[in-house]
Amino acid sequence: MQVEKKITVLPGDGIGPEVVAAAVRVLKVIGKRYNHDFQLGYAAIGGAAIDQFNNPLPDETIAMCDESDAVLLGAVGGPKWDNNPAELRPELGLLKIRKTFDLFANLRPVKAFPSLLDSSPLKREVAENVDLMIVRELTGGIYFGEKKRNEEEASDLNIYTRHEIERIVDNAFELARLRRGKLCSVDKANVLETSRLWRQIVEEKKEQYPDVVVEHNLVDSVAMKLITNPGHYDVVVTDNMFGDILSDEASVITGSLGVLPSASIRSDSFGLYEPVHGSAPEIAGQGIANPAATILSVAMMLQYSFGMKEEAAEIERAVSAVFEDGYYTADLVKDGGRALTTDEFTDKVIAEIDTNF
Amino acid sequence: MQVEKKITVLPGDGIGPEVVAAAVRVLKVIGKRYNHDFQLGYAAIGGAAIDQFNNPLPDETIAMCDESDAVLLGAVGGPKWDNNPAELRPELGLLKIRKTFDLFANLRPVKAFPSLLDSSPLKREVAENVDLMIVRELTGGIYFGEKKRNEEEASDLNIYTRHEIERIVDNAFELARLRRGKLCSVDKANVLETSRLWRQIVEEKKEQYPDVVVEHNLVDSVAMKLITNPGHYDVVVTDNMFGDILSDEASVITGSLGVLPSASIRSDSFGLYEPVHGSAPEIAGQGIANPAATILSVAMMLQYSFGMKEEAAEIERAVSAVFEDGYYTADLVKDGGRALTTDEFTDKVIAEIDTNF
Ligand SMILES: CC(C)[C@H](C(=O)O)[C@@H](O)C(=O)O
Ligand SMILES: CC(C)[C@H](C(=O)O)[C@@H](O)C(=O)O
Repeated sequence: MQVEKKITVLPGDGIGPEVVAAAVRVLKVIGKRYNHDFQLGYAAIGGAAIDQFNNPLPDETIAMCDESDAVLLGAVGGPKWDNNPAELRPELGLLKIRKTFDLFANLRPVKAFPSLLDSSPLKREVAENVDLMIVRELTGGIYFGEKKRNEEEASDLNIYTRHEIERIVDNAFELARLRRGKLCSVDKANVLETSRLWRQIVEEKKEQYPDVVVEHNLVDSVAMKLITNPGHYDVVVTDNMFGDILSDEASVITGSLGVLPSASIRSDSFGLYEPVHGSAPEIAGQGIANPAATILSVAMMLQYSFGMKEEAAEIERAVSAVFEDGYYTADLVKDGGRALTTDEFTDKVIAEIDTNF
Repeated sequence: MQVEKKITVLPGDGIGPEVVAAAVRVLKVIGKRYNHDFQLGYAAIGGAAIDQFNNPLPDETIAMCDESDAVLLGAVGGPKWDNNPAELRPELGLLKIRKTFDLFANLRPVKAFPSLLDSSPLKREVAENVDLMIVRELTGGIYFGEKKRNEEEASDLNIYTRHEIERIVDNAFELARLRRGKLCSVDKANVLETSRLWRQIVEEKKEQYPDVVVEHNLVDSVAMKLITNPGHYDVVVTDNMFGDILSDEASVITGSLGVLPSASIRSDSFGLYEPVHGSAPEIAGQGIANPAATILSVAMMLQYSFGMKEEAAEIERAVSAVFEDGYYTADLVKDGGRALTTDEFTDKVIAEIDTNF
């Protein structure tokens, strides 16, 4: 029986439309090969939506996502909208879609591709065995707490409820259990009250996951250790603000920001999938962007929203094989090598999948 | 005419007393050589103060610091006090002394010693020309805003006044002017109201410092670039929480956490000087700790609190020369080398200073 899945595609700004187009090609090939019926609908977000609808997240977009099983996003933002007022900033589209759909768990895997390690700022021996997953709380904390401002002062409230912490911590424990059984919870419990509640909840929860080894670590200390000893980590769970910083920091370890996917998921299987990299306006429209991160985001969608493990693994294998064969886009190409265009790289990935029928 | 300076010494916990003793030896040698009268008084802070006075920052300590021109601190904390209630935690001594003496500007220089780069997790070409200074706001923001807690939720208020931001930003501009004239202001202005005020003030201030080139950067992006391209930075200014994370992250760049000093200063010349590393309880009492960071903190004291530039430079030159000669403590020793003890390393530094009479 054919499985039917509805996917809303939000190309967004900059290189967003290009990398999304590439990932959609791969998605279609997978649909054909495994006989799934992926139904795609397109909608606007970010700067593109501001230009068209004067709203970074139009109601039409919300309605379409609401009807879908998953969302694929390119990237938002660019200099064109940088001086817009807060309510007309592309990023607001991102913050709103997270909140509207309660996408509280942001998963950011960082895994070394051996063939890309030359591009890492870290020594090979430090980066080579890295395989970690940052789990960031995405709909609470200081991002969404009350903000105040007058001429003389400004404030942001960092606030977490027990419920918000419990569900992200549960999520991280479950993931750890499916991986290497190690969880590092990151906080600033020596200073913050929210962190003390966070730490207490992790302590309570760990009774339910006796198979997971838990450590608590302070955010400043993790900011060091992610660079000195990234191989130490399996699953890392933390709040929205710390997660923003640490996941971006971790993204440089393997030398391949252009290949890192992410998932932002809800408690049911609905989720939004997007590359970690931004809209890279400086190279937009040239057809040279690296589509790997978005293609791998599709793999995460197949795995986390649709439970299609084999299909997800097949995409990951294909991308990895293309790198192993020495094919790279401009961001990763080595001295003397020829850089593939977005389309050429995608062709290679698709060929890998095809030849494996 | 002999200059007289009063210095309160707070050895603290773990390796604190050992590294402070080493730094004091160097300070005395400098005093003798340059004919300054450094008067030292000792007082308790942190765990040691909790044990003795049931208070991480006793009134006697405050009184003695208040009479001094500068404070030299070792480190605070250790497993012994880890489960103490919040008001009896060693770190509280640190937070309180910063607040009591209005030490709003935390300066953390990160400079590569070429002879230590083998210990860096970064590739040599990435780390080798790094020479940056992180300026962290130290007495405001979420560290000191109102905290609330009940069974169901917890919150921390991130709050900044115009005055608090203006003075730290001024401080950073002045430092940039004395260095390479580049200032990177770090915030999360796409999300936080405090960041938007921060960014606005930097924009206002930059008119007064036309000789300084300013850029604004988001904290997540800086967390990446500090690792991919640390040589880009000269002075980096940011708030208390971001500064905590980024300065610790930056401390790993050069492979030498054990040699990084810090200063926490007030608007007059009063300041507190301490190594960036912690109390390292696991090696305390063995006489093997690296005293370089504390010795270099004394150099910062001479420079920033006493205006003794030549003396400061002399210490820095001596420490650098000892490394160049291939002498290291256990944390930095290379394969096959012999690790110097704390005292032996200090002897070498002092010998360097002496031979230059
Ligand atoms: C664009 C911005 C609001 C966003 C965030 O901080 O969450 C981005 O940095 C991210 O990490 O997805
Ligand atoms: C001990 C702790 C409260 C302190 C801080 O976060 O300020 C420390 O991490 C530091 O950076 O000096």
